[in-house]
Amino acid sequence: MTHSIAIIGASGYTGAELIRLIATHPSFEIKALAANSKAGQSLAQVFPHLRHLDLPDLVTWEQIDFSQIDLCFCALPHKTSQEVISQLPKTVKIVDLSADFRLRDPADYEKWYGNPHAAVETQKEAVYGLTEFYRDDIRAARLVAGTGCNAATGQYILRPLISGGVIDLDEIILDLQCGVSGAGRSLKENLLHAELSEGTNAYAVGSTHRHLGEFDQEFSALAGRPVQIQFTPHLGPFNRGILATGYLRGDPQAVHAALVTAYADEPFIQVLPFGETPSTHHVRGSNFCHIGVAGDRRPGRALVVAALDNLTKGSSGQALQNANLMLGENETAGLMLAPCFP
Amino acid sequence: MTHSIAIIGASGYTGAELIRLIATHPSFEIKALAANSKAGQSLAQVFPHLRHLDLPDLVTWEQIDFSQIDLCFCALPHKTSQEVISQLPKTVKIVDLSADFRLRDPADYEKWYGNPHAAVETQKEAVYGLTEFYRDDIRAARLVAGTGCNAATGQYILRPLISGGVIDLDEIILDLQCGVSGAGRSLKENLLHAELSEGTNAYAVGSTHRHLGEFDQEFSALAGRPVQIQFTPHLGPFNRGILATGYLRGDPQAVHAALVTAYADEPFIQVLPFGETPSTHHVRGSNFCHIGVAGDRRPGRALVVAALDNLTKGSSGQALQNANLMLGENETAGLMLAPCFP
Amino acid sequence: MTHSIAIIGASGYTGAELIRLIATHPSFEIKALAANSKAGQSLAQVFPHLRHLDLPDLVTWEQIDFSQIDLCFCALPHKTSQEVISQLPKTVKIVDLSADFRLRDPADYEKWYGNPHAAVETQKEAVYGLTEFYRDDIRAARLVAGTGCNAATGQYILRPLISGGVIDLDEIILDLQCGVSGAGRSLKENLLHAELSEGTNAYAVGSTHRHLGEFDQEFSALAGRPVQIQFTPHLGPFNRGILATGYLRGDPQAVHAALVTAYADEPFIQVLPFGETPSTHHVRGSNFCHIGVAGDRRPGRALVVAALDNLTKGSSGQALQNANLMLGENETAGLMLAPCFP
Amino acid sequence: MTHSIAIIGASGYTGAELIRLIATHPSFEIKALAANSKAGQSLAQVFPHLRHLDLPDLVTWEQIDFSQIDLCFCALPHKTSQEVISQLPKTVKIVDLSADFRLRDPADYEKWYGNPHAAVETQKEAVYGLTEFYRDDIRAARLVAGTGCNAATGQYILRPLISGGVIDLDEIILDLQCGVSGAGRSLKENLLHAELSEGTNAYAVGSTHRHLGEFDQEFSALAGRPVQIQFTPHLGPFNRGILATGYLRGDPQAVHAALVTAYADEPFIQVLPFGETPSTHHVRGSNFCHIGVAGDRRPGRALVVAALDNLTKGSSGQALQNANLMLGENETAGLMLAPCFP
Repeated sequence: MTHSIAIIGASGYTGAELIRLIATHPSFEIKALAANSKAGQSLAQVFPHLRHLDLPDLVTWEQIDFSQIDLCFCALPHKTSQEVISQLPKTVKIVDLSADFRLRDPADYEKWYGNPHAAVETQKEAVYGLTEFYRDDIRAARLVAGTGCNAATGQYILRPLISGGVIDLDEIILDLQCGVSGAGRSLKENLLHAELSEGTNAYAVGSTHRHLGEFDQEFSALAGRPVQIQFTPHLGPFNRGILATGYLRGDPQAVHAALVTAYADEPFIQVLPFGETPSTHHVRGSNFCHIGVAGDRRPGRALVVAALDNLTKGSSGQALQNANLMLGENETAGLMLAPCFP
Repeated sequence: MTHSIAIIGASGYTGAELIRLIATHPSFEIKALAANSKAGQSLAQVFPHLRHLDLPDLVTWEQIDFSQIDLCFCALPHKTSQEVISQLPKTVKIVDLSADFRLRDPADYEKWYGNPHAAVETQKEAVYGLTEFYRDDIRAARLVAGTGCNAATGQYILRPLISGGVIDLDEIILDLQCGVSGAGRSLKENLLHAELSEGTNAYAVGSTHRHLGEFDQEFSALAGRPVQIQFTPHLGPFNRGILATGYLRGDPQAVHAALVTAYADEPFIQVLPFGETPSTHHVRGSNFCHIGVAGDRRPGRALVVAALDNLTKGSSGQALQNANLMLGENETAGLMLAPCFP
Repeated sequence: MTHSIAIIGASGYTGAELIRLIATHPSFEIKALAANSKAGQSLAQVFPHLRHLDLPDLVTWEQIDFSQIDLCFCALPHKTSQEVISQLPKTVKIVDLSADFRLRDPADYEKWYGNPHAAVETQKEAVYGLTEFYRDDIRAARLVAGTGCNAATGQYILRPLISGGVIDLDEIILDLQCGVSGAGRSLKENLLHAELSEGTNAYAVGSTHRHLGEFDQEFSALAGRPVQIQFTPHLGPFNRGILATGYLRGDPQAVHAALVTAYADEPFIQVLPFGETPSTHHVRGSNFCHIGVAGDRRPGRALVVAALDNLTKGSSGQALQNANLMLGENETAGLMLAPCFP
Repeated sequence: MTHSIAIIGASGYTGAELIRLIATHPSFEIKALAANSKAGQSLAQVFPHLRHLDLPDLVTWEQIDFSQIDLCFCALPHKTSQEVISQLPKTVKIVDLSADFRLRDPADYEKWYGNPHAAVETQKEAVYGLTEFYRDDIRAARLVAGTGCNAATGQYILRPLISGGVIDLDEIILDLQCGVSGAGRSLKENLLHAELSEGTNAYAVGSTHRHLGEFDQEFSALAGRPVQIQFTPHLGPFNRGILATGYLRGDPQAVHAALVTAYADEPFIQVLPFGETPSTHHVRGSNFCHIGVAGDRRPGRALVVAALDNLTKGSSGQALQNANLMLGENETAGLMLAPCFP
């Protein structure tokens, strides 16, 4: 059975990644592409790498006939996303890739994003989109809120360890390197090739990154008590990829065992043999997440490193995985493409 | 119908690319992977990005039971390739990715590669693997010789123009930039990140690059007279991609028209509207080739620029396209994945 | 004797490069830094890499007391530059890095840049700043117009060959790769790391690049007849560096000899032994230009490749070299720093 | 007064960096360059970026007439270095850039490097080369052992904090990203551009990196009790630069104050205003080290980030700074060049 798909926000990187993935999906058909600032342009003009696809030109989202759409991906900036989604017909399933519906408590949203939430009612029906941990809810959902890419990576490391009670909840440090596509297609000086290539730096220091809102919400719910991790992202001179390095208190073998068990049946999460750690090179362009564990010379300390592609498993791949569940398709459909290395 | 596939030389980049592509092929099944220097290792050890695949460990090529193999890709260095292929059973179809069977005349081979050809009889049955121009021969072939990656790019520009008689055969200049994966996984100082990144240089200057052997052979046959182009490759600080810029004498509109006509029905060759030129960014990781044409302020001069991914359309993607033909499959099977941008 | 220096347009890359070079100049002292859009900021805010220098905060150019300034570098965008420079006191020597005073004929300026020249009188006193060929004029000049970075590179290849009569003036092709800093610190989508890294493309195809105005002017004057070259620039995924590849008709040995002779006493131009060609890696961050010559299998064809750093020898290094001459200093002062490799 | 300098190990990256820096040093003159594997070659053959320098060809170290040498830099691999240095005349001052004389206790050396120390007597006279903290000893030394580049970066963060008693000695985590030139000019698969660019990974996980030997020695001596930090390096896709991120327990303001005080008079160490953190882009090619401090939402936790260029401040720049002291020159001579950005 073929499902009719719309993408709103098709001119950004997560929009392009959705189109790339759906291009080889066996049962999804893109019926509408919206990008209000570039309405009227062809996809080849906006993304020449997709010129071989026979797809409709870009329109405004208001021009879409949603009566013909089964599921709509919404890849807009936060704040805009909630405004648009609250106006869409309730008959359409939605996977939102923005930050707007990730935080259950509107007060949390306002705290981290600075503006009051403008679609509180819609928020109530949103399901948090970390597929491996919300699979059943996602299957039944109308609106799924895709996670932050950093938030996904950190949770792949930490959820099984918190659930399994194998680490000290008060001593969690997450150090992360993120590729530049995570910042989107935005015109900022620090994202220019001349400024970014050939070096690295920390940003959002002092545990001020917005994805901490997700960590707080999810880890506290999981632990049944407040959990606040320390988190520092770095911007790396590469386009795709997140490498998260967790400094944890707990027995490294127990940590490894908890991860192996948690992900034993997961198609996309690969836990490496103990002592091996992953590289973002080896997940690039794919929906896989590689996780490795090592010990330390001081007992009781574990190092966990996770690698994924922020645009795929961290965003658009996750979104497609969720859409597959929401539409009753095979969860891995369109997502088994191997990483592109070198 | 499922076809059983072997890959010899599976530990190099073209080997890895073959595996990546075949991973989502609907009817090819990899039965054996050989890499004599790494025999006994798992694929995950040699290429961690392929660890999710359920594939056999590496063996030596002599250990393969060829009675179970329908088609064998051979991704060995030149010289080694001819030695191995001449020992394989004649019942196995072969797509060779080396330079060993590209030149029909063994004297040409010796001239460009320095050693006498050691499999002259086998050479006689080889078909040159530029799919779009040897499709029928490839369908019927037992042994197909994959083209050089630079040679493929140049021919996509020049063949229709030579056939169409729209350019001056004595005034062809081809300037080319090639990504570093074209040099393979070899340990050379100039391929180190520290030496190669953040700059560029010409190499094989003075029209001494070995792929000129292919250009000479093909263009002269096509023209029915000797054709010698001038060709300068450059090494660029990127992993995948070839951008070829052709400086030609002829009417630009006629040049564009000849290319549009030649590739009108080709699934992988996209000719851009007149005046637009392509970028390697937009074909990365895919089997597509984009070609653009512009004029010059001086009449009678045409600029043609072609972009493809050297590992895909320039090598392993071409090989798979040919294998599809040789085994009676849909020519595009496993090859429609969209470029990976950004 | 210490010279007082001002820099207008200090917040762009050529401004930063001027400051970097002058930082170790024995007799230049920066007295004022202007950048109207960032007036009031410290240099450390605009360019953190220069935070160790004890320099004045940024001001508007109108705030500079020019009675205390011996020489002013003007690193503004074209069009703005002519407006500002025509208002500066005539007692101040000026090195302009923009395109505004490079073309002697205002009609040429309007043809290539689209707007009428607004400072025609000032234009009349401008000297073209290609140091090695206008040394005496520069020494005596009040206003020197820095050359285009691509224009400089091409001229280093071609001027001695045109003067020497060793090449065919109607068959000159210049293919060029330029690093991204050549485009300045401007917020454009195609200059983002995510769009530019890991690939390359041609631009300004069809011999439409503005630096052709300089080539036409200079080569025609030199030859005493109109000369129009064919010129295609490419944008490469590196920050600094231009590699120009010239396809020429002439005897390669005579071409090499002409270059060796022309540059025998030049401190910054290095002609390599015949058959060797340069790399941009090996001039990065320096004021050197490396030039190499090779032949072709077809006699009468020469390949000449030149490499320089667009920000240094192609722009700010050239500007400082000219300022040294204008102020009676050693021409190489502040400019002998070795390239930064790797 | 001019000092005569020799460099042994001139064909590696730290050797090249020494030559680059000394090229503009006012009173150092290079008299001999040794590289046994490349003896007989010119410097231009080994490092084309240094071709403008009028320097002697490479020789074997045994060919150097040390009676004419005031100071010898030794940039050999560890193990080789101790063998060579123990054979040099005692009249020559030596700055060693290898790991061979960094660890005072030969048992520590054997533990971390795997082989017994073969020059125990020579070890006894070695002074540890972290300039800012061993300045007086270095001035008087005959043999100075350059520090590890990661070890230098970590110590710039931690020494003032340990001395000042402002952090918990048992809770020190150092997360580090290092550019690829830190691995030297060695032919390893993971250092190829195709393997390294466009991604990142951890290495030497589990606090097994050899530079921990230096951290243990120095921090324990400073604290007067054993100190063992947790340390994870990552390999980043850039050539130059180390970014170290320290996760510390202590009051962030007190941490910042301790660093500001410690480095107030240091010419090369710049402590940023509280809350700002540095970038490796802004120290590239220079001898500067930028350090920044931030707090965390949880009180009592401090984040300290330091950036330096591993080849300059982390290795050859440090070596030159020490040589200046040993020869009675201005400590900053030849070292004030500004970072090369972009």
